Amino acid sequence: MTKKKVVLAYSGGLDTSVAVQWLTDQGYAVIACCLDVGEGKDLKFIQEKALQVGAVNSYVIDAKEEFAQEYALLALQARTYYEDKYPLVSALSRPLISKKLVEVAHKENATAVAHGCTGKGNDQVRFEVAIKALDPTLEVIAPVREWSWSREEEIEYAREKNIPIPIVLDSPYSIDQNLWGRSNECGILEDPWAAPPEDAFGLTIAIEDAPDTPEIIEIDFEKGVPISISGEKYPLSELILKLNELAGKHGVGRIDHVENRLVGIKSREVYECPGAVTLLKAHKELEDITLVKELAHFKPFISKKLSELIYDGLWFSPLKDALEAFIKETQQYVNGTVRVKLFKGHAIVEGRKSTNSLYDEKLATYTSDDEFDQSAAVGFIKLWGLPTEVHSMVNNKQAVKN
Amino acid sequence: MTKKKVVLAYSGGLDTSVAVQWLTDQGYAVIACCLDVGEGKDLKFIQEKALQVGAVNSYVIDAKEEFAQEYALLALQARTYYEDKYPLVSALSRPLISKKLVEVAHKENATAVAHGCTGKGNDQVRFEVAIKALDPTLEVIAPVREWSWSREEEIEYAREKNIPIPIVLDSPYSIDQNLWGRSNECGILEDPWAAPPEDAFGLTIAIEDAPDTPEIIEIDFEKGVPISISGEKYPLSELILKLNELAGKHGVGRIDHVENRLVGIKSREVYECPGAVTLLKAHKELEDITLVKELAHFKPFISKKLSELIYDGLWFSPLKDALEAFIKETQQYVNGTVRVKLFKGHAIVEGRKSTNSLYDEKLATYTSDDEFDQSAAVGFIKLWGLPTEVHSMVNNKQAVKN
Amino acid sequence: MTKKKVVLAYSGGLDTSVAVQWLTDQGYAVIACCLDVGEGKDLKFIQEKALQVGAVNSYVIDAKEEFAQEYALLALQARTYYEDKYPLVSALSRPLISKKLVEVAHKENATAVAHGCTGKGNDQVRFEVAIKALDPTLEVIAPVREWSWSREEEIEYAREKNIPIPIVLDSPYSIDQNLWGRSNECGILEDPWAAPPEDAFGLTIAIEDAPDTPEIIEIDFEKGVPISISGEKYPLSELILKLNELAGKHGVGRIDHVENRLVGIKSREVYECPGAVTLLKAHKELEDITLVKELAHFKPFISKKLSELIYDGLWFSPLKDALEAFIKETQQYVNGTVRVKLFKGHAIVEGRKSTNSLYDEKLATYTSDDEFDQSAAVGFIKLWGLPTEVHSMVNNKQAVKN
Amino acid sequence: MTKKKVVLAYSGGLDTSVAVQWLTDQGYAVIACCLDVGEGKDLKFIQEKALQVGAVNSYVIDAKEEFAQEYALLALQARTYYEDKYPLVSALSRPLISKKLVEVAHKENATAVAHGCTGKGNDQVRFEVAIKALDPTLEVIAPVREWSWSREEEIEYAREKNIPIPIVLDSPYSIDQNLWGRSNECGILEDPWAAPPEDAFGLTIAIEDAPDTPEIIEIDFEKGVPISISGEKYPLSELILKLNELAGKHGVGRIDHVENRLVGIKSREVYECPGAVTLLKAHKELEDITLVKELAHFKPFISKKLSELIYDGLWFSPLKDALEAFIKETQQYVNGTVRVKLFKGHAIVEGRKSTNSLYDEKLATYTSDDEFDQSAAVGFIKLWGLPTEVHSMVNNKQAVKN
Repeated sequence: MTKKKVVLAYSGGLDTSVAVQWLTDQGYAVIACCLDVGEGKDLKFIQEKALQVGAVNSYVIDAKEEFAQEYALLALQARTYYEDKYPLVSALSRPLISKKLVEVAHKENATAVAHGCTGKGNDQVRFEVAIKALDPTLEVIAPVREWSWSREEEIEYAREKNIPIPIVLDSPYSIDQNLWGRSNECGILEDPWAAPPEDAFGLTIAIEDAPDTPEIIEIDFEKGVPISISGEKYPLSELILKLNELAGKHGVGRIDHVENRLVGIKSREVYECPGAVTLLKAHKELEDITLVKELAHFKPFISKKLSELIYDGLWFSPLKDALEAFIKETQQYVNGTVRVKLFKGHAIVEGRKSTNSLYDEKLATYTSDDEFDQSAAVGFIKLWGLPTEVHSMVNNKQAVKN
Repeated sequence: MTKKKVVLAYSGGLDTSVAVQWLTDQGYAVIACCLDVGEGKDLKFIQEKALQVGAVNSYVIDAKEEFAQEYALLALQARTYYEDKYPLVSALSRPLISKKLVEVAHKENATAVAHGCTGKGNDQVRFEVAIKALDPTLEVIAPVREWSWSREEEIEYAREKNIPIPIVLDSPYSIDQNLWGRSNECGILEDPWAAPPEDAFGLTIAIEDAPDTPEIIEIDFEKGVPISISGEKYPLSELILKLNELAGKHGVGRIDHVENRLVGIKSREVYECPGAVTLLKAHKELEDITLVKELAHFKPFISKKLSELIYDGLWFSPLKDALEAFIKETQQYVNGTVRVKLFKGHAIVEGRKSTNSLYDEKLATYTSDDEFDQSAAVGFIKLWGLPTEVHSMVNNKQAVKN
Repeated sequence: MTKKKVVLAYSGGLDTSVAVQWLTDQGYAVIACCLDVGEGKDLKFIQEKALQVGAVNSYVIDAKEEFAQEYALLALQARTYYEDKYPLVSALSRPLISKKLVEVAHKENATAVAHGCTGKGNDQVRFEVAIKALDPTLEVIAPVREWSWSREEEIEYAREKNIPIPIVLDSPYSIDQNLWGRSNECGILEDPWAAPPEDAFGLTIAIEDAPDTPEIIEIDFEKGVPISISGEKYPLSELILKLNELAGKHGVGRIDHVENRLVGIKSREVYECPGAVTLLKAHKELEDITLVKELAHFKPFISKKLSELIYDGLWFSPLKDALEAFIKETQQYVNGTVRVKLFKGHAIVEGRKSTNSLYDEKLATYTSDDEFDQSAAVGFIKLWGLPTEVHSMVNNKQAVKN
Repeated sequence: MTKKKVVLAYSGGLDTSVAVQWLTDQGYAVIACCLDVGEGKDLKFIQEKALQVGAVNSYVIDAKEEFAQEYALLALQARTYYEDKYPLVSALSRPLISKKLVEVAHKENATAVAHGCTGKGNDQVRFEVAIKALDPTLEVIAPVREWSWSREEEIEYAREKNIPIPIVLDSPYSIDQNLWGRSNECGILEDPWAAPPEDAFGLTIAIEDAPDTPEIIEIDFEKGVPISISGEKYPLSELILKLNELAGKHGVGRIDHVENRLVGIKSREVYECPGAVTLLKAHKELEDITLVKELAHFKPFISKKLSELIYDGLWFSPLKDALEAFIKETQQYVNGTVRVKLFKGHAIVEGRKSTNSLYDEKLATYTSDDEFDQSAAVGFIKLWGLPTEVHSMVNNKQAVKN
């Protein structure tokens, strides 16, 4: 009889290497699957390591451009920040990883998918809901959550099974990274009164060490897609990586956030998103001149919902499709150029221009070029204030009477 | 027969000085009224100047603490930003000025109130709606909007009437200031592609000139009210002024915004809010650890509505009262201390603590102190993802069938 | 020199007949344009009358199916009710009429467009904003608002100009009608304490006179579009008219509403929407079984915004396009059949079924067929209630301490 | 050693009678606690039965007026409907029952609280989250969910333990009732295509059997509280019961709803809320004339959130307090009288009047009494449509260019 197959999201680290063995012990043939979503992995090395620790097959997938086009871009165009701070780093890659796991499972006729998350984070939810959404017939296994070993027990098991144990096991941090940024938790970061130490950061320089000379760049957008930096065109994934480098060098994009997890607890996380933060700021400024007021005032409701939905693991849901349809409809106007000054931790938008700009100097000016009909204001104010005025007439009278 | 009386919002500048005469020409006895809401006016000088240019009476009112307690504080506790950028500077002072104008009108038995706004800004709306809300029987006059003179005609009239003309008439900017910040528009700022020049700023130093050494301060909050800086207590108005100084010195709080005015046009404004921005950041971080998730996720809707309502001149409306009741109810939990690093244009919250903190290291930790029940996650995910899973089962089947 | 041309929205009534002459007096060549959007007009008669009262050309357009497909359908799929009551009757037809006026203007090289609204209703806003949105270069004229004659003066002018005066001039009501319903205001309806008299209604029978036997119909939907009644297929406009008849006979769809107009006043209106109300109810019930929870809970925000935007005359705006994109994305699941009982003023949905139904008897049942995993609830409740529990632990302790 | 004490929410039915024994078997001393929240229970009988089946103590509490004042009233003033249909029947009583259970637990020094819910409904969540919110140290036990017996096993156990078994065990329905209404699920109702049979209803007459003569009543409100029916004053709980009778007799308030449960499934429920529906309609109409537009347009967001929060079991949460503060602030204006016609399943508001009415006939009228300044509309429309107009000018030009 052939063994049941499971596709495991494999990172090359200790937990998922142990999981290969543990799943094999449970009677599964393990197919490892590792994605590069921009964290700069050595995919070849990981592919081989998976086989070495017992996987029957090992996939590695460069998913950077797909991640940029299908996931990061929506986060940019909607400008999704969870709780007004976190630009959704891990939350964005989980659905793509899930999708690839399911694709491999279908290709390999696997009946199960496994991930290396523990039982207290958001990622377990994101993986499991995404996988169920894509194929409800697949079994989902969470080895780390199930075995609930202490660190010592896990290492003991690894020794027994000849799984290579990393020399440096004592990094206090738990890190995840992709094109859109880097997240870090655990260790001293668990004390919300403590400032994050320098060794908690990996993509950005400290403001103290940032250059004394600003770098000024221009970002061009076409239909809400950033296409070039200072005139040079890049595929989206490369553009984001380039900005990570440019803005990271100036200390842009450090975020320190005590957030509400989906699973009911607050946790303190440190994020670095130099490219994302730069793009998000530039995109807002371009929308500020190209979107009509009513749209600009309503879009944030869509963004907030989309942020929460993505954070909460509901990427593959009809609500996401509808929110995305809204966002995409709006981006046709978002064409133009934004000039950004990268300096001492800031990405300062200094200028913005667009052939779709609704900013009209002739209407806005206080000079003699003024084309605004000031007399219209009198009628406008009269009707604008009328409900308040009637309310006041009626209820002041009431107040007097009573 | 006694003349009709009008109470004029008087600033001491050319426009309102000319307005004293113009209103007198229209047959009114003009009562000037000038408030200090934190811009540091020489009230004595203005009081006398009003009489000198023809006012029959001249009031000056130090309204700084009332402005801080009744207006700026709500903006802080709700964290109102118009269009996610502008922390409501002028929009906050207009209702208070209107209230004082109406109080003086009642005291003086005046039948009219006048303001110096033109016909294309937001402030005309704010004044007129506020005044009508407070006393719908008062006539409201907008001399500058009515006379619609060119600058030259206005100066000619001033000369004729012996109204002192400022030596420096050629400042390109139009500036308004109070405790909560300083706004600036016009001149080169009307070009949204141009970076704001240094002379557009008055409360903050350029990041380039900011000190190389950060200043670290601690701000204590009691029920959402900031009460002390690094252990020293201040009345609220003084605390904000102190922070304007401390944070302004480090270049904190410059904002460059192309915004949608209520009167239908976009305009580019430059704001400086060093104290406000520092307080707003600190307040958010304290709420991040003290407000329960559901509340933290809903409060932004209240804040957004309140921001728009204040911007749109509807301060004195029952909706504001209801939104304020919501906000005030939430602030009982917002007690604690926030440590802020002022440096190179940043107000970085490095640490936050509170006796009301809902952040629980025992629940959040990944160490052996963990008190979180990881097995609960399995059931949670099952039900959380159930709607999506059923949707997938039903509609994938449908997709196959069709 | 050729005269300037104006395209006038012509109804055949006194006001717009007088407007033909009045505009001619102002030097315009008047092109009349009359649409049938479902009110059952005698288009031929109106076309001739326009010429008879002085129009140089006269267009009549049967726009029923276009109105149904492009306007009423969106109102149905979004289920737009203004202030939770008014299903947008006139507000829906105004943009279509405006569009046709602009098309005729382009065809005729007219430089102006005119409508017959007064200065205190919503329709003037809807016409003028829509026309400006479609072609900002067109002049818009509102003769009735401009001439501001009393009824007597208008009749005097009509006599003078040989404009036929209707025999029955003393209907107290002001009525507008299209496929989606009939609105009525004025007369006794201006007293919100008075019950609307029977003569205020035209599409529905009084409940008192409704048949004692219900009529039970089945409505089939495909992708959110109602396509048949009790098995018989109809084009959408005919389907709505058919339902107006069927449901109107049972007294369905009377609405009595004191509403907030855009122009700042409250007004009391009486609506009859037998077909619309029946379809809106059926559509909701079908969505209740086919839309996933997250989507069902968010869609009402979209509907509310869309309702207000349409009511406020902003149909031709990018925000409408984005809201529509959201709605359309959701309708792919809305397939199935709804059984409705028309009886004594009610359209009661008695049953609903769909191949996309997410209602799963196996999960919902309390019988032995139950497939729901009740043990999952324990973990779910633990994490669902965790924020509240931690809040209670922390703040009760605080309460004790203080 | 003394036994641990548990307070059990006792209904007198089979499940909770068996639970008394089952908990006793687990080593608990069981204190029964039964509330009357308006369902008309024989409290004396239930009190004795609890003791008879093994409880060591038995509390019965008439909580009708407290339920009316503290729970139903907020539902009325906010007009909370879950998913626009269900006026929150059981969801409203659960927090009050939880509160009483905790109070009794404190009085009796009990360490646990128990409820009779299964593992697939909403009520288990409501009870457990409420109890944890009120006292996180209390253990919560759900016997029915834990024992997971079939009906036969439960009866077998009851026989063994001499627990009286109801003669009629085969009611297909699961019913809950309080002042605010009656809910019913299970049996044939589990088929959403089937019309609910007459025996599913208990508070209302079928429309077919409703009287041919309407009953017209007037309801007076003071600050949003209904205080009298047709001039006769009642305490709130009695007023609601009276309306249940009056409106139920006319078939008012039947609701048939396929809803999204918190635990991830859809279920079909039938509700009867004759009094609630009548009051909710009357209250809306009174707000329609007394609340200013901005408030009337925003309050529904508060209501929607409050509805979901109550449905989802988060009554005792700081968000509820804040939402309630909003609602209460608005009710000062809601004074006046509403005339309602009860007829053939309808509660039709025919008239409304208020000393706080903002409806102003002088402004609304089209007669010669008109006090509305129609010329103001011109300026209003100009600025209202300006963003759309500029958008059109810019983007039509763009469209041409491209």
